[in-house]
Amino acid sequence: MTQSTQENLEYVDAQINVRYGETDKMGVVYYANYLVWFEVGRVAWCRAKGFHYRDMEAQHGRFMMVAETKCRYVAPARFDDDIIVRTAAGRSTDRIIRFEYLIQNKTTGQLLARGETVHVVTDTMCRPARLPDAYRHCFGLLPRPGSTKRSPGA
Amino acid sequence: MTQSTQENLEYVDAQINVRYGETDKMGVVYYANYLVWFEVGRVAWCRAKGFHYRDMEAQHGRFMMVAETKCRYVAPARFDDDIIVRTAAGRSTDRIIRFEYLIQNKTTGQLLARGETVHVVTDTMCRPARLPDAYRHCFGLLPRPGSTKRSPGA
Amino acid sequence: MTQSTQENLEYVDAQINVRYGETDKMGVVYYANYLVWFEVGRVAWCRAKGFHYRDMEAQHGRFMMVAETKCRYVAPARFDDDIIVRTAAGRSTDRIIRFEYLIQNKTTGQLLARGETVHVVTDTMCRPARLPDAYRHCFGLLPRPGSTKRSPGA
Amino acid sequence: MTQSTQENLEYVDAQINVRYGETDKMGVVYYANYLVWFEVGRVAWCRAKGFHYRDMEAQHGRFMMVAETKCRYVAPARFDDDIIVRTAAGRSTDRIIRFEYLIQNKTTGQLLARGETVHVVTDTMCRPARLPDAYRHCFGLLPRPGSTKRSPGA
Repeated sequence: MTQSTQENLEYVDAQINVRYGETDKMGVVYYANYLVWFEVGRVAWCRAKGFHYRDMEAQHGRFMMVAETKCRYVAPARFDDDIIVRTAAGRSTDRIIRFEYLIQNKTTGQLLARGETVHVVTDTMCRPARLPDAYRHCFGLLPRPGSTKRSPGA
Repeated sequence: MTQSTQENLEYVDAQINVRYGETDKMGVVYYANYLVWFEVGRVAWCRAKGFHYRDMEAQHGRFMMVAETKCRYVAPARFDDDIIVRTAAGRSTDRIIRFEYLIQNKTTGQLLARGETVHVVTDTMCRPARLPDAYRHCFGLLPRPGSTKRSPGA
Repeated sequence: MTQSTQENLEYVDAQINVRYGETDKMGVVYYANYLVWFEVGRVAWCRAKGFHYRDMEAQHGRFMMVAETKCRYVAPARFDDDIIVRTAAGRSTDRIIRFEYLIQNKTTGQLLARGETVHVVTDTMCRPARLPDAYRHCFGLLPRPGSTKRSPGA
Repeated sequence: MTQSTQENLEYVDAQINVRYGETDKMGVVYYANYLVWFEVGRVAWCRAKGFHYRDMEAQHGRFMMVAETKCRYVAPARFDDDIIVRTAAGRSTDRIIRFEYLIQNKTTGQLLARGETVHVVTDTMCRPARLPDAYRHCFGLLPRPGSTKRSPGA
C-alpha cells in the first residue's frame, strides 16, 4: 500500500460513531473492531458502486470470503468519536478481490489506522468460485467474452 | 425466578476466563457479553445432557431462537477473572424452552449476575416448530404417544 | 412497560445499518447485539437532551452502570437491514435511571424487539452515587434545593 | 514468519470452543474474532511465562498496545469446534513486542489461520514506554545494567 497507489485509489467514505461496547478497559477502541469497521466500509463501497453485497450472496450465491487482513494502528479511537472509514478497491481479479482502508477521526482529520483485506470469491460451500459477470465492471474488470449482463441489480 | 425454584434446579457449570475485548472503558465486562456467556452455558448444558446443540440444528433442522432475555447485574466482572456460568433448564414444553443462569466469580464465589432466556423452537425458516422427539427427555418432557426414538445422538 | 406508558413516552430515534459481524450462523442478528443497539439508542437520547454521555463520565466522574436489562425479540433483523432504535427515559430518580427501547425495521416499520434497561448512577469506583445536578432536568427531575447549575454542558 | 522461524519458536497452547455468537451468516467464524483469539493466546502465553498480563497493567502501569496485526485465513472454523491457539513471542525489544500465532482445529489438527501482532509498550496515557525490568527475561531480554528485580510477580 504505497503512497502513489493511494493517490490513484478512489475512496468511498462511510461514517461511524464509536460505540461504548467497542472500547476496552484501556479506554480506547479494541483492536479487533477495526476489522468490523473495514467491513462497514466494504458494504458502503459496494453500495456506492450500485449494488448491495447481500444481493451478491442471496441472488448469485457468491461470497467474498476473507483470506488475509492487515492493519496498522496509528492513533487510538475513543468512545463517541466520529470516525470516517475510507475504502477503495485494490488490484482485483474475478477470483481475488482486494480492498484498502483508511480510518480517520472525522473531527480532527487524524489518521487512526490503515489496513487491507484480500478476499477469495467462493460459492455457498466455501469453494473457490468466480465473481458473477454482472459485478465485473464494479471492480474495474472487463466483460468476459460472450458475456452480456452488466448490471448487478438486473 | 424464586429462591425455591432455584433450589430445585439442576445447574450445569461452565468455566470462562474474561477476555480483554469483553471489557469496556469502564474497566469492567460490557453488559451485552453476559448474554454471550449465557449461550456458552446453554451449550455446556446440552453437552451435559448428552447432545450437541449444533447437531439439533444440523441433523434435525431445529433451532432454539431466543424470544426473551433478562439479566440482573449484581457485581462487575473484570479482565482475567475466572467465571462460572451455571445453567439450568426452566419450565419447558416442546415449543417453548426456558433456561436460567447464575454467573459467579469462580475464585470468590461471589454472584455477579443472574438471568433467564426463553426460546421458541423453530425450523430453518424461523417458523415455530416442535422439539424433535429425541430431545424431549433432555428437557424433562415425556415421550409423545407413538414416539419411539429416545437418544438425540442416534 | 405498559401500552399507556408507551404512549406518553418521548422517543428519540437513532438509525443503524445491520453489520455482517452482527449476524450469526442462523442468518439473523445475534441476540446479544440488541443490547449494543440499546446503548446506541441511549447515547442518541443523551445527545437529543443536549449532552454527551462521555462528558458525564469524563467531567463529572459519574457512570450509568447497567443493573438490569430485558429484551423481547419479536421478529429477526438481518444483514444490511436499516434499523431504528427508539429510546425513551422511563421513571427515574437521581440514583436509578430507566430507559425503554423499541427496535424497528426502518423500511417496513415492523417491530423487531422491545426492551428496557435499569441503571445505577455510580462513581469511578463503581460505588452508588447521585446524578450530577446539571443533568437532573434531562431526566425530568426537579432541581435540588440550593442547586444552581442547570446546563450539563456548562 | 518463515518456516525456519517457526521451528525455533516455543509455542504456548490455549484451547477455545467456538461460540455461537462468533459465527456469522456465512455459517463460519467472523474474521475479526480471530484477533480476539490471538489475545486469548497472548494472555495464556503470559501465564505460561509466570505472570498475569493484568498485573503488568495494574501494578506497573504498562500496556502492550497493538500497533500492527496480520492474519491469513486458511480454512474456516465453525460453531462448537474445539480450537487451539498457539502463541509464541517473536523478535522483541523492551519497547516493541511481537507475537506469532497459529490457529488449529484441535480435533483434526488442521491449520485454520496464522497471524502476528506487533505491540508498542505504553504508559497509562498511551505514550511509548519501556517494558518493566521484571518482565525482560520473559521476552528473552537480558537484564539492563544496574537492574536487580527479576520476577514480574514480585
